[in-house]
Amino acid sequence: MQAEIITIGDELLIGQVVDTNSAWMSQKLDDAGFEVNRATSIHDSGEAIKDAIREAMGRAKIILLTGGLGPTKDDITKHTLCELFGTKLVFNERILEDVKSFLKGRVKNINELNRGQAMVPETCIPIPNPVGTAPIMWFDYEGAVIVSMPGVPSEMKTTMEHEIIPRLKQKFRTKVILHQTVLVFNIPEAVLAEMLTEWEEQLPADLSVAYLPAPGKIRLRITGRGNNETEVRSKLDTVTAGLEPIIGQNIFSYDDVQVQEILGDLLKKKGQTLAVAESCTGGMMGHLITSVPGSSNYFKGGVIAYANDIKEKVLNVKAVDLDEQGAVSQAVVEQMALGAKTLLGTDYALATSGIAGPAGGTADKPVGTVWLAMASPEGVWSKQFQFGTIRERNVQRSAETALIMLVKHLEGLTIAQISQL
Amino acid sequence: MQAEIITIGDELLIGQVVDTNSAWMSQKLDDAGFEVNRATSIHDSGEAIKDAIREAMGRAKIILLTGGLGPTKDDITKHTLCELFGTKLVFNERILEDVKSFLKGRVKNINELNRGQAMVPETCIPIPNPVGTAPIMWFDYEGAVIVSMPGVPSEMKTTMEHEIIPRLKQKFRTKVILHQTVLVFNIPEAVLAEMLTEWEEQLPADLSVAYLPAPGKIRLRITGRGNNETEVRSKLDTVTAGLEPIIGQNIFSYDDVQVQEILGDLLKKKGQTLAVAESCTGGMMGHLITSVPGSSNYFKGGVIAYANDIKEKVLNVKAVDLDEQGAVSQAVVEQMALGAKTLLGTDYALATSGIAGPAGGTADKPVGTVWLAMASPEGVWSKQFQFGTIRERNVQRSAETALIMLVKHLEGLTIAQISQL
Repeated sequence: MQAEIITIGDELLIGQVVDTNSAWMSQKLDDAGFEVNRATSIHDSGEAIKDAIREAMGRAKIILLTGGLGPTKDDITKHTLCELFGTKLVFNERILEDVKSFLKGRVKNINELNRGQAMVPETCIPIPNPVGTAPIMWFDYEGAVIVSMPGVPSEMKTTMEHEIIPRLKQKFRTKVILHQTVLVFNIPEAVLAEMLTEWEEQLPADLSVAYLPAPGKIRLRITGRGNNETEVRSKLDTVTAGLEPIIGQNIFSYDDVQVQEILGDLLKKKGQTLAVAESCTGGMMGHLITSVPGSSNYFKGGVIAYANDIKEKVLNVKAVDLDEQGAVSQAVVEQMALGAKTLLGTDYALATSGIAGPAGGTADKPVGTVWLAMASPEGVWSKQFQFGTIRERNVQRSAETALIMLVKHLEGLTIAQISQL
Repeated sequence: MQAEIITIGDELLIGQVVDTNSAWMSQKLDDAGFEVNRATSIHDSGEAIKDAIREAMGRAKIILLTGGLGPTKDDITKHTLCELFGTKLVFNERILEDVKSFLKGRVKNINELNRGQAMVPETCIPIPNPVGTAPIMWFDYEGAVIVSMPGVPSEMKTTMEHEIIPRLKQKFRTKVILHQTVLVFNIPEAVLAEMLTEWEEQLPADLSVAYLPAPGKIRLRITGRGNNETEVRSKLDTVTAGLEPIIGQNIFSYDDVQVQEILGDLLKKKGQTLAVAESCTGGMMGHLITSVPGSSNYFKGGVIAYANDIKEKVLNVKAVDLDEQGAVSQAVVEQMALGAKTLLGTDYALATSGIAGPAGGTADKPVGTVWLAMASPEGVWSKQFQFGTIRERNVQRSAETALIMLVKHLEGLTIAQISQL
């Protein structure tokens, strides 16, 4: 069953607000077995709204609208829906009661604008809005369902979860759609695709695969469709199991999570601690690690050793190595990791030293050259990487790759095995 | 001149990825004087792409596509564009050279898939992609311009800024649209709006103002439209000058730049240095500061003192204060700043200590309680803030607010004056 999403608001089309509603709604619809066919952002204009709905009705049976329903601007959407569906606004006592009870304790008196929110199109089924004053309107029209919801994400989300998705499921029998995500690191997209050619050719017809690249990793998404959940799940599992012999240790997760979450879970489970020594990443590793709530259980902190004298003074890196090998070198990055491990008294320490760019590159060490190191109870691992010429991406890839290496180590790979990845 | 954006990718319509490209592109187009009429997300399907482009051509003269251009099989955009524009793929030697030079040092050999990226539609103008391997294709077709770009945000952004916007401006004479941004900190949106009521009422008709709130600050954007650049600029300047007497020191910039860029310029000009001591921000201050190219000229580094024993051991915070006042206290945050300034030997040091959440709050110190401190040649400044309950936003606001305070100090405000802000 095909669905479409229409988000209404000038703010979306001048770039003032990123439309996060469409992705959130798409995921919920997809989980419920509805296929989202298109998502469209349009202006707060009657003509734009009418055109977009009419076009969507030509392609889909479910059309979900968000936005254009506040107490000041709602006129356009509500009046436009009346014109489009040949009906008129009527006063609805129950909605007024809902608005009153929602505003109780929040405002002294409800005003004319709030009272106007109880006017709804005669042919719609009004749905209560437990978290706001804007009405939710459900229309059955020429075999399609059109629902108009508020654009405030929290109001839309509550409405979708508690009212719209259950009603849609009841009205339309839906197909099962399941996804399996596999996170792969350190293999460029084109190389991975070549490795998977045969595997892809053998995919059953009702399974499909997509490559979603992100800095330093690829999210491989396998989608299965069918009528029976157990059958689709089983097919997905078989196909997914076929990836391990091909990609091996370069798979770092079968869940669609951030590497810092996997790392946090592993460290917490083992009761072990971590420190960082950051040069080119400048705080990014610490930032990623501490973006996980509860990270204080395993992350003790670190040293941002941006200047060479800090590497020497705080992390005990030898001056002779800084002089002779340079800051971006194996000798220095390994001493940084060891220095942080000792100074902070942790089980593990990760270190970065590289040329983030855009300036600072040489023929020997071009922009993007990054040394990563990990000090662990087993010893020290280090490796040189080349992460390209964009500063922002270099920093992100350096930090994430270091975290991934520690995940692999915590999962049981020795330092020698990690160097093979 | 009307423009439309079409973002291509199954991942957008199952909610795996939020479409941030549309908002970013809308803002750039708007800044350049093009009006975005509609933004549509569609599947990686030939029919969907063809339909969406044909429909968009009925409404707009500029159609910008992102996504569907990687080297793998799920990308069918290129073939579809050939069908739609009645042309065929031809091999382009120059693109192959670009792909080769981009991949040099990244992969051992370029493979068949990479080679395939040098096949482009015969009638398109291929545009070099300096940051990736996917080609950028510009079509002039029936009076419209259709441009296909990669979906990876960093690649799309570089392309838009350096190639597409300048070419569109050259091709289409646009009205003059000028923006003046004023960055205001530490004043809530509703309060600022009240302060500016009279100022807003006196705005000339061809000037408009928008409030763009971001964590810890508000970007006030004044937009002027007209046919003559000098006239529009002069009107904008007059109106902008009227803000200073109303908002005063809570304005921190008249450029739409990041606080870390202003800070970097000031430190570079003065030849002074900076260190950080981060607890609740966990590396975010360092990350923001080092996101500016050339920051190694003034940023020496810092200590991420997440655990209390690191605050004590590395930054010399007194154990008795940690015990009696707690880590989130004036005594501790001031000693952190002083400790970092001494350890790293800098002119200034910024420190943070707070409860980022979601757990860890108490009745005394609820989630969002953050102490910021700054050690400077003049002495130590510190202040307690309340940054709300969302972890990510707390961290961002803490880091940015600390940086803003240092900017104000470097601009000449004394510690006593900063405490009044």
